[in-house]
Amino acid sequence: MSEPRWDRLLLNGTLATFAGDAPYGLIERGAMALHHGRIAWIGRMDALPGAPDALASAVESLDGALVTPGLIDCHTHLVFGGDRANEFELRLNGASYEEIARAGGGIASSVSATRAASDEQLFEQSLPRARALLADGVTTLEIKSGYGLDMDSERRMLRVARRLGRELGMSVRTSFLGLHALPPEYGDRRADYVTLVCDEMLPALAAEGLVDAVDAFCEGIGFSREETRRLFGRAKELGLPVKLHAEQLSDLGGAALVAEYGGLSADHLEHLSESGIQAMAVAGTVAVLLPGAFYALRETKLPPIEALRHHRVPMAIATDCNPGTSPLLSLRLAAGMACTLFRLTPEEALRGVTVNAARALGLSDRGTLEVGQRADLVVWNARRPAELCYWIGGGLARKVYVAGELASRRKPSRRSSSAS
Amino acid sequence: MSEPRWDRLLLNGTLATFAGDAPYGLIERGAMALHHGRIAWIGRMDALPGAPDALASAVESLDGALVTPGLIDCHTHLVFGGDRANEFELRLNGASYEEIARAGGGIASSVSATRAASDEQLFEQSLPRARALLADGVTTLEIKSGYGLDMDSERRMLRVARRLGRELGMSVRTSFLGLHALPPEYGDRRADYVTLVCDEMLPALAAEGLVDAVDAFCEGIGFSREETRRLFGRAKELGLPVKLHAEQLSDLGGAALVAEYGGLSADHLEHLSESGIQAMAVAGTVAVLLPGAFYALRETKLPPIEALRHHRVPMAIATDCNPGTSPLLSLRLAAGMACTLFRLTPEEALRGVTVNAARALGLSDRGTLEVGQRADLVVWNARRPAELCYWIGGGLARKVYVAGELASRRKPSRRSSSAS
Ligand SMILES: [Zn+2]
Ligand SMILES: [Zn+2]
Repeated sequence: MSEPRWDRLLLNGTLATFAGDAPYGLIERGAMALHHGRIAWIGRMDALPGAPDALASAVESLDGALVTPGLIDCHTHLVFGGDRANEFELRLNGASYEEIARAGGGIASSVSATRAASDEQLFEQSLPRARALLADGVTTLEIKSGYGLDMDSERRMLRVARRLGRELGMSVRTSFLGLHALPPEYGDRRADYVTLVCDEMLPALAAEGLVDAVDAFCEGIGFSREETRRLFGRAKELGLPVKLHAEQLSDLGGAALVAEYGGLSADHLEHLSESGIQAMAVAGTVAVLLPGAFYALRETKLPPIEALRHHRVPMAIATDCNPGTSPLLSLRLAAGMACTLFRLTPEEALRGVTVNAARALGLSDRGTLEVGQRADLVVWNARRPAELCYWIGGGLARKVYVAGELASRRKPSRRSSSAS
Repeated sequence: MSEPRWDRLLLNGTLATFAGDAPYGLIERGAMALHHGRIAWIGRMDALPGAPDALASAVESLDGALVTPGLIDCHTHLVFGGDRANEFELRLNGASYEEIARAGGGIASSVSATRAASDEQLFEQSLPRARALLADGVTTLEIKSGYGLDMDSERRMLRVARRLGRELGMSVRTSFLGLHALPPEYGDRRADYVTLVCDEMLPALAAEGLVDAVDAFCEGIGFSREETRRLFGRAKELGLPVKLHAEQLSDLGGAALVAEYGGLSADHLEHLSESGIQAMAVAGTVAVLLPGAFYALRETKLPPIEALRHHRVPMAIATDCNPGTSPLLSLRLAAGMACTLFRLTPEEALRGVTVNAARALGLSDRGTLEVGQRADLVVWNARRPAELCYWIGGGLARKVYVAGELASRRKPSRRSSSAS
C-alpha cells in the first residue's frame, strides 16, 4: 500500500473559502486536505480523488460544521502595561476628562505602566489577551508599539509582540507606532521627538528586524500631516510599508496621504472624505474599520460605508484592542458590531476579518481557503457564516488550526491581574 | 488531631461581596470558607480563627484574584428551536420587516422551529447556550417558555429548561410566558387563546411543578393590560409570583400593573413613566434592564436610569438571550453594555447581575457573599470589579463554583448547529 498523500483530510464541512465572488465562496459538503502546513486540496467531497482513508493519514468528519480561514486581526495595540478599568469607572461615576487626566489617566497612564513593566511582566500581562483572540479564532495578529515612546520601551513592546507569536504559534505582524503620542518628557520639544522617531528609533528598530510596517496617529491630538509625511518618507527609504490612524475624530486628509505612499491601510475613517476614498481606491489602500472604539466611545458619526462600497475600497474589521478606547478581546464580536453598528452585511464583515484583513497586512498567503494557502483555519460550532456575526459573545470556535496544526490549548497562566 | 471544620478554604481573594452599602461590599485580602454547599465563614484573612490547614480539608490561595457571587441571569428565552441568523442577514442585506415576515421570519419562525424540534433536539440546541453562560460565570438562570404557545410545546420548553439545570448543575428558575405572542392558529380567536393560557395551560403546568413565575409580553404587538391582568389574577389564585415585559416599545402602564400585583420585576422599561417608577418603588418591584436587546435593535430611547436611582428602585441586568432581538451569550457583556450604553456605574451593573438579580427572582439565598448563603461564586482572571465591565469579550471566569463544587467542565457536545 502506498503512503497517503496528505497529512490530514477534513470531510463534510461547510467551507466559507472567501475565494472568488460567490457568496462567502461557499462550498457545501466540502472536503479539505492539509499537507505540510498548507491547503493541498479543497472542493466538494464527491470530487475527492479517492477513498478518504487512502488519501490522508488522519481523516476527520465535520458533520456539516462551518469552516473559515483563520481570522486575522489587522489592528491591535495588544501589548501594554496595566489597564484602564479605573479610568472607565471614574468616567461612569461622573469624572470629567480633566479630572481623569489629573488622576494620571489617559494614554499617559498606559505609557507609564508600560515603561514600568519588566519584559516578563509586559509579556505576562499581554499573553491572556492574545490567548483570548486565539481561542476566538484569530491566527494572525497585528500588534503596534506606541506605549513606550522611547527607544528602549518601544523595542521591548515589539520584542514582546514577537514573543507572543512564538509562544502561542500565532503569526504576529508588528507595526512601529512611535508617533502615537508625544511622550511627557518632550512636552515642549515636539520637533525633537519627531526627529528622534524618524532618524533614530525607526532605523534602529527596523535594522533589528522588529518592524513589519510603520504607523502613526494623524489627528489634531496626535501628529500632523507634515510630521506623518516625514515619517513615511523615512519608511520609504527603509523599504517598509505604511499605514495610518486617519480621520477618526476629524478630517486631516490622512487617508489621501497614506494612499499617496501606496499604504497598506487607513484605519478608523469615521470622518473620511470623498476625495480620501477616491485616493484609497486608486492606491488599493484597505479601509480598516474599528467598531469597538466606535462603540466604547459612543461615537455617532459612521464611517462612509456606502461610498466605500461604491468605490470598491476593500473593507477590513479589527478589534483595535487597546486599554483606553477599545478593550475588546473578540474579533468575532468586532465583526458582529460592524454589522449591527455600521450595517455591513455578514459577508462584508467576515471578508473584513479574513481576505481583506490579510490584504491590509500585505499578506497574500492567507485569508482564503485555497490550494497553496497556509492551513490556518477555524472549525466553528455553527453551520452558516452569518451565525458568526449574529451570536453576541459565547465561545463559538471549536478547533483552531495554525499552519495545519491544532493551536495549542495550554492552560491559562496563573496570573490574575489581567484579562484572559 | 480534630477534623477540619470546613470543606474548603479560599485565601487571599479580593472579595466583592455585595453585602452592605460599602462599594462592592469589598473585602481585600479576604478569606472564605465553603462547607456543605454554603458559605461558612467570610472576612479578612488575618481574622481567620486558626491556621488555614487546620481549618479546612482543602485550602487554595487566590493570589489576590477577584471573587464575586455566581452571576444570576434573571431574564432569558434560552430554550428555542433553530436560530434567526438568516433573518439577521436578510435585514442587513436590505430586506424590509414585511419581506422577512413573508419569508417566514420573526417570532413565528421560532415558534414553528420550537414546535418541530424533538425534546432531545430542543435540549441539544439549548445546551451550548446554557454552557456559554455558565462558562462566563452564570450559576443561576431564569428561562421562559413562550415559543411553544400550545400546551404540549410549552410543557416541553419548561421541561427542557429544568433538564438544563439538572445536567449542568445550574439553578434554573422557569417562567411561564404563554402570553408571549398569539399563535398563528388563533389568529382570529384572540380571546380564546387568552382563555386557554389562563384557564388550562397555566393551572396544568403549575400543577406539574414546571412554573416558578408567570410572565407576559404587555405591548401593542403583544397583549393588553386587561389580558395581562386576567393572567395575573389566575397566577395569584395559584400562589405564583408575576413579572412582566413592560414599556419596551411604548408606555402601556405595564410596570404599574405588575407592581399592583406585588410583582418580582418589570423588564425592558425604555418607555417607563414616572408613575410607573413610583409604583415599582412602593411595591419593591425590580427594574430589569436588557441592554442586549437595546443594542441589537439599535434603540435610542434609554430607560429612565436617573429616575430609577432617585426612587431607589433596584436595577438588575440580564441577557434577554433570545433568537430574535438579543442573541447574547454573555451576562458579563450585558453588564458592560449597561455601563457603556445606559451609563450605569460598574458597581450598579454588577449589583444588577448579583444581588438585585437574585431579588428579581425572589431568591434570598444567593447574590451576595455572606455566611449562610449558597456557595455559588466565581473566581475571576481580574483583580478589581470594574474589570468585569471594562473588558469586552474574552473568557474572564477562571473558576465557577456552584453550591461549593467546581462547575463541571464537560466537553462541548459534538453538535454543530448551534452556538456554544
Ligand atoms: Zn489604533
Ligand atoms: Zn424577554
